Amino acid sequence: MLAAVVHGKSLRLQKKPLPRLVPGWALVRVRLAGICNTDLEILRGYHNFRGTPGHEFVGEVVRTAASPGHNQKAADGWIGRRVVGEINVTCLGLGLLPPCATCRRGYTTHCEKRRVLGIIGLDGAFAEYLALPLVNLHRVPENVPDEVAVFAEPLAAACEILEQVDLRKCSFAAVLGDGKLAQLIARVLAVSGLEVTMYGRHASKLAVASDAGIKTRLVLRARNWKTPENAHELVVEATGSPQGLAQAITMTAPRGTLVLKSTFHGAAQLETWPIVVKEITVVGSRCGPFGPAIKLLASRELAPGKIDPRPLITRVFPIRDAPAAIRAAQEKEVLKVLLKP
Amino acid sequence: MLAAVVHGKSLRLQKKPLPRLVPGWALVRVRLAGICNTDLEILRGYHNFRGTPGHEFVGEVVRTAASPGHNQKAADGWIGRRVVGEINVTCLGLGLLPPCATCRRGYTTHCEKRRVLGIIGLDGAFAEYLALPLVNLHRVPENVPDEVAVFAEPLAAACEILEQVDLRKCSFAAVLGDGKLAQLIARVLAVSGLEVTMYGRHASKLAVASDAGIKTRLVLRARNWKTPENAHELVVEATGSPQGLAQAITMTAPRGTLVLKSTFHGAAQLETWPIVVKEITVVGSRCGPFGPAIKLLASRELAPGKIDPRPLITRVFPIRDAPAAIRAAQEKEVLKVLLKP
Repeated sequence: MLAAVVHGKSLRLQKKPLPRLVPGWALVRVRLAGICNTDLEILRGYHNFRGTPGHEFVGEVVRTAASPGHNQKAADGWIGRRVVGEINVTCLGLGLLPPCATCRRGYTTHCEKRRVLGIIGLDGAFAEYLALPLVNLHRVPENVPDEVAVFAEPLAAACEILEQVDLRKCSFAAVLGDGKLAQLIARVLAVSGLEVTMYGRHASKLAVASDAGIKTRLVLRARNWKTPENAHELVVEATGSPQGLAQAITMTAPRGTLVLKSTFHGAAQLETWPIVVKEITVVGSRCGPFGPAIKLLASRELAPGKIDPRPLITRVFPIRDAPAAIRAAQEKEVLKVLLKP
Repeated sequence: MLAAVVHGKSLRLQKKPLPRLVPGWALVRVRLAGICNTDLEILRGYHNFRGTPGHEFVGEVVRTAASPGHNQKAADGWIGRRVVGEINVTCLGLGLLPPCATCRRGYTTHCEKRRVLGIIGLDGAFAEYLALPLVNLHRVPENVPDEVAVFAEPLAAACEILEQVDLRKCSFAAVLGDGKLAQLIARVLAVSGLEVTMYGRHASKLAVASDAGIKTRLVLRARNWKTPENAHELVVEATGSPQGLAQAITMTAPRGTLVLKSTFHGAAQLETWPIVVKEITVVGSRCGPFGPAIKLLASRELAPGKIDPRPLITRVFPIRDAPAAIRAAQEKEVLKVLLKP
């Protein structure tokens, strides 16, 4: 099969054998894959990942292998199904017994032994095929086309905020950043009834949010971004930039909540005393629940424009142009770039 | 009266007039004052404070002035009482109407107009007298001697953690740091039923915690402190040092809670991605409730050794030796230094 692999700071195409199918896993033909900022960070050295990146996908199950003691017929029921997949492969998926302490605590996405699709120890979705445990898969409803379903993983990451923060305490939220994840987060918060303002540096990206009914504010990068101080009970930092957190701290109201989404490689200078003095709660937020995300994507036609991610798609490249796709994804005014095997 | 005032990076003694008594306020004769790390930070430029520092005290009310429309007799009831005092003077205490938005939200310790005793715009306790609104005062029970009562303010700051964190989710807590605030925090968490380990760099300070029944671990500063990774569901960072937070992040278990107590002047290099990847909740924590703190101090004889802060007292200086007291408080093996006017 054709696959993109990390080669220094860029991608290179390779012919690779199909992923080996182990019991309890499925072989999935990738129909569409999305490029995420984490993929760009991986090319800057994040996690020292070698292999095929890519963790956002929609695909079709082409082969399965039942776990020992499980019904091959049930496993076969997946064949031909369109699926999206959770990216953390945990003790359960890896067949490790007894499970690690973190899995036992129920925090399976934090499994100590985990492999993460296209991020840690497991080849990902920038290829014609990938393999994942059956327990990681979710069926895609009929009414959700591929170019919508491919957003399930990042939308789940946005939905994670709903699991972590008690939104009943908040009315005004700020999303700092106007990139692809920020866009999804703003929509999820708006759908949840909050008044959301997106602060960003790119007029064209803010316009996309504005079209979806989100209040936006262009902030110019003088010495600091000009954002209001202490104004928001909930601030989501999704700039992907080392400067974002300091700015988000400034914007957060006393006793407010700051959700941290950016993962970038390396360290940044930070004054931490305002976190203490304002008694801010900073909530690190990563992968989220697929169920609510798929539900939101499936109900977009019931409430038109509610969360339709398609306006976020800037370009679709064939998989053989993966290196060019990565370069395109790094450009300033670009939102989501997709790869089609 | 005799008062210590900030003079560059040290204290200088001055004869000053008594604080002016305004309606709703009390004039308090300081019986004993404590030196806190914040005082040392103030001398390094934190908050640009000018005037008399000091925010930990026990004193005696010598004069009061009723608020307009309030009963002078009730105000007079305070005279001769031994008191401790909350340090944030809010819209209510300042007589500002309407109160600010933050006071209206109920977060009065974060009042936008606040003055803070010995920290922001209000002379503090390193003097023979101080003034505070009557609403800030708490009576000291008879059975609590001065050298115990003077710990009410920092113990309240330790108790703030109980208000912010749901301890039912935690069994094993780490306190990072062995200084005076860390010592009180470890005791509060232990009294609350947690198994607490204090990690510190000073054998003599750890011994004080150990005498109070706290598990301790001496950590040596090689390139990094050698502390266990991902081991604690609750970590309290109370080192007062710029390196503490990074270390605390490493120690915190996935989905764990990290309470941040250190306020130091300036910025530090920090890798923030582990907060996101481990989905840690970082809770900034400052001033706390005096009620529970006074209760703990008053009940120390019922459960001997429970929270008796007196072993933390390293030295008591007369107020005229305040400059020497500050120098003593900066020494490595010293815990609490008190000033006696």
